[in-house]
Amino acid sequence: MDLSRRVGAGEGGFVLFALTPPRQSTEIARLPAIAQATIDRLSGLDLDGLVLYDIDDESSRNPAERPFPFSPTVDPAEYFSTYLGDWRGSVVLYRAVGKYEPEDLGDWVERQDPRRTLTVMVGASSGDDRPALSLAKAQAIRAERNPELLLGGVAIPERHNRRADEHHRLIAKQSAGCSFFVTQVVYDVNAAKNLVSDYRYECAAQGLKPVPVVFTFSVCGSMRTLEFLRWLGVDVPRWIENDLRHSPDPLAASLEQAYATATELIAYAERLGVPFGINVESVSIRREEIEASVELARRIIAHLRA
Amino acid sequence: MDLSRRVGAGEGGFVLFALTPPRQSTEIARLPAIAQATIDRLSGLDLDGLVLYDIDDESSRNPAERPFPFSPTVDPAEYFSTYLGDWRGSVVLYRAVGKYEPEDLGDWVERQDPRRTLTVMVGASSGDDRPALSLAKAQAIRAERNPELLLGGVAIPERHNRRADEHHRLIAKQSAGCSFFVTQVVYDVNAAKNLVSDYRYECAAQGLKPVPVVFTFSVCGSMRTLEFLRWLGVDVPRWIENDLRHSPDPLAASLEQAYATATELIAYAERLGVPFGINVESVSIRREEIEASVELARRIIAHLRA
Repeated sequence: MDLSRRVGAGEGGFVLFALTPPRQSTEIARLPAIAQATIDRLSGLDLDGLVLYDIDDESSRNPAERPFPFSPTVDPAEYFSTYLGDWRGSVVLYRAVGKYEPEDLGDWVERQDPRRTLTVMVGASSGDDRPALSLAKAQAIRAERNPELLLGGVAIPERHNRRADEHHRLIAKQSAGCSFFVTQVVYDVNAAKNLVSDYRYECAAQGLKPVPVVFTFSVCGSMRTLEFLRWLGVDVPRWIENDLRHSPDPLAASLEQAYATATELIAYAERLGVPFGINVESVSIRREEIEASVELARRIIAHLRA
Repeated sequence: MDLSRRVGAGEGGFVLFALTPPRQSTEIARLPAIAQATIDRLSGLDLDGLVLYDIDDESSRNPAERPFPFSPTVDPAEYFSTYLGDWRGSVVLYRAVGKYEPEDLGDWVERQDPRRTLTVMVGASSGDDRPALSLAKAQAIRAERNPELLLGGVAIPERHNRRADEHHRLIAKQSAGCSFFVTQVVYDVNAAKNLVSDYRYECAAQGLKPVPVVFTFSVCGSMRTLEFLRWLGVDVPRWIENDLRHSPDPLAASLEQAYATATELIAYAERLGVPFGINVESVSIRREEIEASVELARRIIAHLRA
């Protein structure tokens, strides 16, 4: 079954792989080869879909210096339609809605084929921004211009640790039309379990059916990548940091650890009766970390389809 | 190999079962039958030792009302020597050192057979207390009066979450003569992993050999027991609380969860190369919770000896 039909039916069990489009500073002539290398790398995986992130400069959210410099990336929708035409499967296109004018977003929404495309709309990353378009307005545009286009929202377990209200946010997003959620990268398995558990029981209390929650995983092969994960807001437990710092092969240790976390969350969500998906990304652009993330996806797919 | 020789050699892999002696208000005539029931209950288990706690009124540590009323318990050393004579194995006797006069503790220490008895000395639970005997003084008495008597210390993963210095406390206790550590009940697996990881790498940095860390587990069959665990300072994650609150059989759910946590920590400690033991207790005095704790110990023993 394809991704849209599965998500539309409230069913989980799918595996996605997430990409960040190349930087805008990349020579345009190189983009086709970069896209082809990605397709080739993923062609051996039986994925249910791609995810393309829409990177916003989050420096307004976090005043600390960014460990990797921010560099605007090619628009994910354009990158997908122009360069990833060879990808025959489904795609989840992120929209950082603060970047767009309402008309432009509306036109884009209307053009999407809902059988193949899903979208995740993300609000501005800080209350200090005054974005052109609020998340609520963008959600309303989607409902008006292309109601068949499945809408997803972000879910942040770490925010739940601090405020204990992320499950209410998810349910509010569900009322605004979201039919799935994608977490940020999960390193703190208890935070993810706390969120999905509170979400599931709040759904039951309100007579709602939980929609698929997509857990995101990434390997981390260096202290620099770990620093970047933390800058992004991911809580990486001390023991994982120690493992990475002291391992003769941090990337292999991270792959084992991420796989163990993924299988633990899969078993937990199955037991809880919450539909789930898995999303694998590489937060680093180093080739060996990308390849380890592909290997992570391969192992999770094998585990789920065993 | 018996417990003392194993701990003395810095080796782990052992399983203990912890008891709290009956209340002082119990009719003395009933104590032999209570002790015999305990022996009978544990006789089917291939345990490496018993643990007897020394309960102090911790109301000075936590001003919140205690969910179960405090009631002084029979002295663990007396209870063991008088009523548990049928127990042929090793025993770890706790001493809440603030309760004793130096001479009395010294005499007791001297009388112990170090081949069969180990002791865990616990300091007063709050800085506001002015105990008769400090932990440091008690440790010195042990070193002077019976240096062969193996000494253990408590390890509190939750304190490590808040202050990130528990591994330094462990190493200081090790310098003061501790040759093993016993955690409080573990429900937050990341907190326990963070502590044992920081301890292991700090030992390596200081050229020390890590001593066995004994992880303690208990089932929790009711919200009242959960409330008591939290009062004791145990961080119980929200998802576990939700599981218990909504499960048709909370005790069975708790048994599964505690077993999963134990096997995860065992695998982690093995990978890390830190010797470990397992201690199972029942924080509740309800018969069904005690029996579930015995079942937990049985399953952990089977897992370790498989």
